[in-house]
Amino acid sequence: MYRPEIKVVDCSIRDGGLMNNHQFSHKFVRNVYKGLSESGVDYIELGYRNSKKQFPAEEYGPWKHCADEDILRVIDGIESNSKIAVMGDVGRVDMDDVKPASESPIDMIRTAVYVKDIDKSISMANEFHDKGYETTINIMAISRDQGPELDEAIEQVESECKCEAVYIVDSFGALDQENVQHLMKRFKKVLKTKEIGYHGHNNQQLAFSNTIEAVIQNATRLDGTVFGIGRAAGNCHLELLLGFLKNPKYDLRPILDLIASEFIPLRETLEWGYTIPYAITGMRNEHPRSAMALRASEDKDNYSEFYDSLLNSKMD
Amino acid sequence: MYRPEIKVVDCSIRDGGLMNNHQFSHKFVRNVYKGLSESGVDYIELGYRNSKKQFPAEEYGPWKHCADEDILRVIDGIESNSKIAVMGDVGRVDMDDVKPASESPIDMIRTAVYVKDIDKSISMANEFHDKGYETTINIMAISRDQGPELDEAIEQVESECKCEAVYIVDSFGALDQENVQHLMKRFKKVLKTKEIGYHGHNNQQLAFSNTIEAVIQNATRLDGTVFGIGRAAGNCHLELLLGFLKNPKYDLRPILDLIASEFIPLRETLEWGYTIPYAITGMRNEHPRSAMALRASEDKDNYSEFYDSLLNSKMD
Repeated sequence: MYRPEIKVVDCSIRDGGLMNNHQFSHKFVRNVYKGLSESGVDYIELGYRNSKKQFPAEEYGPWKHCADEDILRVIDGIESNSKIAVMGDVGRVDMDDVKPASESPIDMIRTAVYVKDIDKSISMANEFHDKGYETTINIMAISRDQGPELDEAIEQVESECKCEAVYIVDSFGALDQENVQHLMKRFKKVLKTKEIGYHGHNNQQLAFSNTIEAVIQNATRLDGTVFGIGRAAGNCHLELLLGFLKNPKYDLRPILDLIASEFIPLRETLEWGYTIPYAITGMRNEHPRSAMALRASEDKDNYSEFYDSLLNSKMD
Repeated sequence: MYRPEIKVVDCSIRDGGLMNNHQFSHKFVRNVYKGLSESGVDYIELGYRNSKKQFPAEEYGPWKHCADEDILRVIDGIESNSKIAVMGDVGRVDMDDVKPASESPIDMIRTAVYVKDIDKSISMANEFHDKGYETTINIMAISRDQGPELDEAIEQVESECKCEAVYIVDSFGALDQENVQHLMKRFKKVLKTKEIGYHGHNNQQLAFSNTIEAVIQNATRLDGTVFGIGRAAGNCHLELLLGFLKNPKYDLRPILDLIASEFIPLRETLEWGYTIPYAITGMRNEHPRSAMALRASEDKDNYSEFYDSLLNSKMD
């Protein structure tokens, strides 16, 4: 499927960093940035622009804060036509720390938000926009907020926000292609001046097929990560997405090399991807935190008991 | 999605056995049969009914042949409402070895065939039918045979074959949901007296979403395997499929227990599931054999070179 208007955002470092408090080595991030640049992805999201006060540097690596100087150091001397993105969570960004875009290596700031905080995200995105950044609003955990409050939120973004795109974010890996089709239709009905994006999680091995479905429904901003790295079950695999898109500007080989040289070794010490507890939270439309706690415990393969505990917690 | 007419076939031992010449231990197969029976799956496919002359017992385990006495031994004393299925490949079954169904523990024989051999499969399936078995025709590698020869084959099965169902088999893991929708519509147009089934491979992590798509398009026979075991990238994960179907007759817990007790340990010594070489053969619509050879070699993570070799072999 060749649609020249499609833009791919790699968020390996940003979403993957949720598994290690963004403690990636300088060399790893440089290699990832280099390989992604060679692959021709449109945006490389290097991390969060979250507050150092809320996420102290003793506990969190540099890609939780994405200081301009850290970004400049990691990209230094690497040829790239990819733009640089960072993400800011509503309520977690020191807005005064964000310089005008003209003085920063960052091209795009994406604001991550739950439906109930949509007003705050609009005001943040507008402030980023006025500083000269490209902006998006990424609506998280959308599988849990599908009532009329969602339509209202999209309408508000359409009329009040200066962002270029709005993302459907399936944080819990709970959606299938029917749900994505339904959500895309709701978004398209309202959003006349903004692009639509899709960010999936792979709890039920549906992140890639849901991204395909979003493309079929004319989404133009697609998130992927190398070898699916990301929180818990991880994300849509970038290598599958580029293989599908057929756009001649993308080259799969640098991604394949990155997987072999960086991600296969990393996977030995950092667990992400399909495991049964994450599949279960996805099926039950739950945040993966209980499954992450299970995987970090000695009981990590006690699936039935975990399944029953989720079912019972709902009935109390 | 609760559709009481849907029937699930587990083919863990049959398709998984393609990775170890069907050399599963007696205890393993018993435990799998027991767990699957408790889960309420409709059919348990225990292996192939292929010829001992063509697949000698010195090289292949008992589940390559599924002799009635081996089946009886492995299910002995286990309570089960699931039916027993086996698969026969066109040209590989000693037809005289197949007793009448009334004298055998086998309930269903599925005939696996490429489009070009469809006549042979019809005659085999009719012979099995006349001996009293339930029968299906499973059209393999369908992603490579989508010309008019496919319509002709389906028409022939509809008019000449006594089987109950015809399967779309995505042997190469090359299809996505648009392709499945298209194929299902072609099948439904012709098949008025037979059910339609779907069997996916997971090269591009699309086996489950393609099975969902088949359900949306009214397929009623669905294949899955425990933890996705199967040749190369494996199959649609049974645990995901049962989680999706919501049919109260299915219980997920025995499958979760089987994964923890049998399949996680087995996966330490037997490789199946998503790996990059299988993703590449899936994207290129190729048989996984070249990728299986790569994974068995010292070069197993040399993805770029493998990718280029596939591209170049097409241009010679």
